[in-house]
Amino acid sequence: MAEKKKTIPQKPVNIRDITICDATAQMLEKAKRDGVETAFDRAATMKACPIGADSACCKHCSMGPCRLNAKDPYGKVGVCGATIDTIMARNFARMVAAGAAAHTDHGMAMLDLFREVVSGHIKEYRIKDVQKLDMVAQSIGIETEGRTTEDIAMDLYKELERTYTQVEGEIPFAKRVPEKTLETWRKYDMVPRGAMREIMELMHRTHMGVDQHYENITRQCSRTALADGWGGSMVATEISDILFGTPKPVAVEVNMGVLKEDMVNIVVHGHEPNMFESMLVSVSEASLIRAAKDAGAKGINLCGMCCSGAEMMSRHGVPHAGNFMSTEAVIVTGAVDAMVVDVQCIKQGLSKVAQCYGTHLFTTNYRCHIEGAEHIAFHEDKPGECTDEIVIRAISRFKSRNKPIEIPNIRNIGVHGFSHEYISYMLGGTFRASYTPLNDNIINGRIRGVAGVVGCTNPRVRHDWVHVEMVKELIRNDVLVVQTGCSQISLAKAGLMTPEAAHLAGPGLREVCETVGMPPVLGLGSCVDNSRILIACTAMVNEGGLGDSIADLPVAGAAPEWMSEKAISIGHYFVASGVYTVFGVTFPIVEETKFHKLLFNGLEEEYGLGKWGYTADPYEMARMMIEHIDKKRKALGIDKTRERVMMDFQDRRSLDVA
Amino acid sequence: MAEKKKTIPQKPVNIRDITICDATAQMLEKAKRDGVETAFDRAATMKACPIGADSACCKHCSMGPCRLNAKDPYGKVGVCGATIDTIMARNFARMVAAGAAAHTDHGMAMLDLFREVVSGHIKEYRIKDVQKLDMVAQSIGIETEGRTTEDIAMDLYKELERTYTQVEGEIPFAKRVPEKTLETWRKYDMVPRGAMREIMELMHRTHMGVDQHYENITRQCSRTALADGWGGSMVATEISDILFGTPKPVAVEVNMGVLKEDMVNIVVHGHEPNMFESMLVSVSEASLIRAAKDAGAKGINLCGMCCSGAEMMSRHGVPHAGNFMSTEAVIVTGAVDAMVVDVQCIKQGLSKVAQCYGTHLFTTNYRCHIEGAEHIAFHEDKPGECTDEIVIRAISRFKSRNKPIEIPNIRNIGVHGFSHEYISYMLGGTFRASYTPLNDNIINGRIRGVAGVVGCTNPRVRHDWVHVEMVKELIRNDVLVVQTGCSQISLAKAGLMTPEAAHLAGPGLREVCETVGMPPVLGLGSCVDNSRILIACTAMVNEGGLGDSIADLPVAGAAPEWMSEKAISIGHYFVASGVYTVFGVTFPIVEETKFHKLLFNGLEEEYGLGKWGYTADPYEMARMMIEHIDKKRKALGIDKTRERVMMDFQDRRSLDVA
Repeated sequence: MAEKKKTIPQKPVNIRDITICDATAQMLEKAKRDGVETAFDRAATMKACPIGADSACCKHCSMGPCRLNAKDPYGKVGVCGATIDTIMARNFARMVAAGAAAHTDHGMAMLDLFREVVSGHIKEYRIKDVQKLDMVAQSIGIETEGRTTEDIAMDLYKELERTYTQVEGEIPFAKRVPEKTLETWRKYDMVPRGAMREIMELMHRTHMGVDQHYENITRQCSRTALADGWGGSMVATEISDILFGTPKPVAVEVNMGVLKEDMVNIVVHGHEPNMFESMLVSVSEASLIRAAKDAGAKGINLCGMCCSGAEMMSRHGVPHAGNFMSTEAVIVTGAVDAMVVDVQCIKQGLSKVAQCYGTHLFTTNYRCHIEGAEHIAFHEDKPGECTDEIVIRAISRFKSRNKPIEIPNIRNIGVHGFSHEYISYMLGGTFRASYTPLNDNIINGRIRGVAGVVGCTNPRVRHDWVHVEMVKELIRNDVLVVQTGCSQISLAKAGLMTPEAAHLAGPGLREVCETVGMPPVLGLGSCVDNSRILIACTAMVNEGGLGDSIADLPVAGAAPEWMSEKAISIGHYFVASGVYTVFGVTFPIVEETKFHKLLFNGLEEEYGLGKWGYTADPYEMARMMIEHIDKKRKALGIDKTRERVMMDFQDRRSLDVA
Repeated sequence: MAEKKKTIPQKPVNIRDITICDATAQMLEKAKRDGVETAFDRAATMKACPIGADSACCKHCSMGPCRLNAKDPYGKVGVCGATIDTIMARNFARMVAAGAAAHTDHGMAMLDLFREVVSGHIKEYRIKDVQKLDMVAQSIGIETEGRTTEDIAMDLYKELERTYTQVEGEIPFAKRVPEKTLETWRKYDMVPRGAMREIMELMHRTHMGVDQHYENITRQCSRTALADGWGGSMVATEISDILFGTPKPVAVEVNMGVLKEDMVNIVVHGHEPNMFESMLVSVSEASLIRAAKDAGAKGINLCGMCCSGAEMMSRHGVPHAGNFMSTEAVIVTGAVDAMVVDVQCIKQGLSKVAQCYGTHLFTTNYRCHIEGAEHIAFHEDKPGECTDEIVIRAISRFKSRNKPIEIPNIRNIGVHGFSHEYISYMLGGTFRASYTPLNDNIINGRIRGVAGVVGCTNPRVRHDWVHVEMVKELIRNDVLVVQTGCSQISLAKAGLMTPEAAHLAGPGLREVCETVGMPPVLGLGSCVDNSRILIACTAMVNEGGLGDSIADLPVAGAAPEWMSEKAISIGHYFVASGVYTVFGVTFPIVEETKFHKLLFNGLEEEYGLGKWGYTADPYEMARMMIEHIDKKRKALGIDKTRERVMMDFQDRRSLDVA
């Protein structure tokens, strides 16, 4: 074991205060005994820079870095004269640019794979969901009637490539946006051209001495974020569905108990489905299974983590071992023979923890190398080369396991894989698939509204707790919750992804859930799949009765434990699409400033878009979202006098399903 | 006048310590009397964040912002486990991404204009330099023989568009790179695909949890920076030359004395030539001149500042009022009736200073709005609408001038406008234009080597002083200096842009200058025109006798007073192209780290590229560059035993030409 690091907090930390995930807690206890440091320890000892956290510093040029005083935001300006509003808007913009770039690069990689598959250069993947191909093609005006799959696919590729490369005009999926929402974007020159252009221009405009009006910067933030939500991310999701199949509900086990002591355990963690899909093939190879058995294992056990895990869980029922804040903890079990990563949200700290437990940590994507991890390059034209090799290496690690293994005996079965297509089917049935029943139930008040609860986990707050408490509060108030990413895993571990969890819902939502046989919390996939929520919102608008634009809908969004720049880009594309979006943890903007007022108010009031909200308190967060939903219901004339159900402490206890 | 700001330093600052520019100093004295704050004041009171300056903080996710200790760089990691090397490399990469984006967006705007001109949609501009069009087309394999200008131009447009939009393959100007240099890039997968893709990918890779190996990040930094130097920037320069003419030497007045008390003074400041070109037309309009005269002025006086100023000075002999650190000071004269800006290096502080003196500050580009400045949108299809309006507004401000005016009576005449094409012509003459004489003189030792001295000015160091001292030291040691941007203006003000300044050069360089009749310091234009230096280097390699790659040449680069992220991108594209590049002021990397070692050593030793250097001391900077030049001379076998001429204090005094 590694020697104790001096950064491990000296004062005893109560592990129950930092996570409500029993498996993670058990592993943190073990890590402590083993002298192994995790991000929870580092978060406890790393004092966040208070100026940076407020976004009151600027290091965009070497006349600084300049630091303003958040307590007196207009008392000082940067060396160049940049005000607090300029500085915060630029910092915010860079987060949007980085987040949008992450999704765009991912989406482009998927589209590249699609092209190679369609053109026949890559034969290891194929189009699995022809129906989805047709639907997506039709949605942007590509003729499908009487044409071959190959022709449609090639046309779709050519059209969608514009999402990234186009320098003028509107991105293809702008055609999917509700008319009135699109009108608003056009009015404010916010319709994305191509995602790469928007990102590049945003980086330019946030350079020293360029855009120095927070409102103008925000406009380009919106355009860039929309290029993510309706561009980079949406293309990633749609192409993944076409290539690998559109998710349908599937019962899956979630939590660390999915690891098996007597099997070769391979954990895939990251964000892209292509390598994971190949891994699924490799672990089913008879010769490799035999090799595993020869090594004394009962077989090969493939699990996912984080977002590629959520995607594979939704699509193929692959078990899921935990979310972002459990990725180090899972290695502490000692049972992980190989952890394989691609891109995004891979903690560099995994490398050290893996070394401590003799776990192989493999990077596979050329974009992501990690010091201390071994790189086995993944190539889509010969995917098995990489994933077979990793399986072999995992088997050899299984053979030489020499440390005690401790796997938390916790598994939570739930139903995942609610694509927006399935929601339509589920509600309406095969022959009348539609959003009518959803809209009807919202209009008649059984369902008060819909909340998208998404995003990361973050060691600065009690792991999983904010997600779980907030979602419970929402469903108790008849708000249907849709989820993605790490948030979805938090709720899955809390047992809310089952139809039986309907008893936690308010009477209206409960009735709908029981009638349809669905959980009150629907998991839609990975964080890139937030685009499914945009499409669901669009379907609600198009269905009728709930207004003409996304901004009219009684919906709200939240990322209660957000952590990454991607989350900011996602949050902003929801806001720019018309959704009130509340973030937890911290918000990188000083209050009582013009930029704050614009994001938290002006975008809604002056532009007719959505707006940002912030609170770290899950109950307050739910309250804010419900208040917004009620405001929208009132505007739609579908408000009934109803009291929000407030939970007291006793109530909350009774809701614990764990 | 504005009331005294509390941020004006209480202890008296000796203005002579902060600038060697007499005109700027005079205006700073006036500003002090007037109670007006400038960036010099703010720099004196703003304590740069020491952690940020070392790049030892990371705010790429909300688990932080994390701060490491530069004094014990490996004692701690970020919450995610990111090491100091990962954090510094990511911060550095974001600077490269922003800088490259600035040049790329500028270049793309020029190319858009070119397309519209060629296609006939815009008639207000036209192709002025057909010879350059042919040369550029030929350089990337476009047939020109017997074809119309329009055909060639449209082919060139289509080919160059790939510079930005292409997602695979090599950018067009990769064809211009010396074979051996290109080989090295190919070996390390560093050849840029399209600039937008590289920027987007770099933003993705620097997102939390993606690339976490400083060496892999650096590779993508190189590819992105090269997409700037040989892509975004180079296209901007070449297209500007084609549209507006390739610069030829022209005698120009530089310094604040170019303002005229009895004329309507319009100052254009920024980076793009298109609006400035239109302004040149507007100020020559008979009706507007008449209006100015009717208002009591002797006429309209158009001056440039910063980089668009440098470009227009080189191309049309438009007088230049000063560099980046003089842009506020020039308004303090009270004589500027309108300052017109487009993009980049526009201090937000200008807005307040302009208000104090009743000067109109106009923004014109949609990418750059400034709170407190008035926006008059510039459109290339009707350019005069914007620039005429600005002239009218300037005239009306002239009429209502009501504050005392004080214009420093200083003008420095020099020769500017040395395009690389002209250098070839100048050295070889009309019928044998070539780089042979330059290479010959380097080989025979009259010229020891060539230094590119470029970049910003920065209030954290004594304004202009580092540039001037360093360049004097270089030419005294027979190093021919080529310049761009604000650095060029520093030397112009010091009087070194004249053939007579040859007396400051060492005997060898002096002989060459006197023979050719050229200054020892050649101004090549704006900072985007640094691509001219790359082409000049390529010409030197292709000429023969100085090695096979740019890395073999006895050349070095410097940005002694750098300030912007663009400078980092420029620096890195020179390093990745094979040039030793030394920066002053500060360097955002902790010494004694692996990333520092890679940039300052490994890139040269292991990759065969150039490398970074750093010192704030101009004499040490010159010494480092000369030592490198001598090392390269030695490797080429053209070293002669020669002592470097060290200047003592007396020498330095005698060199003052001001």
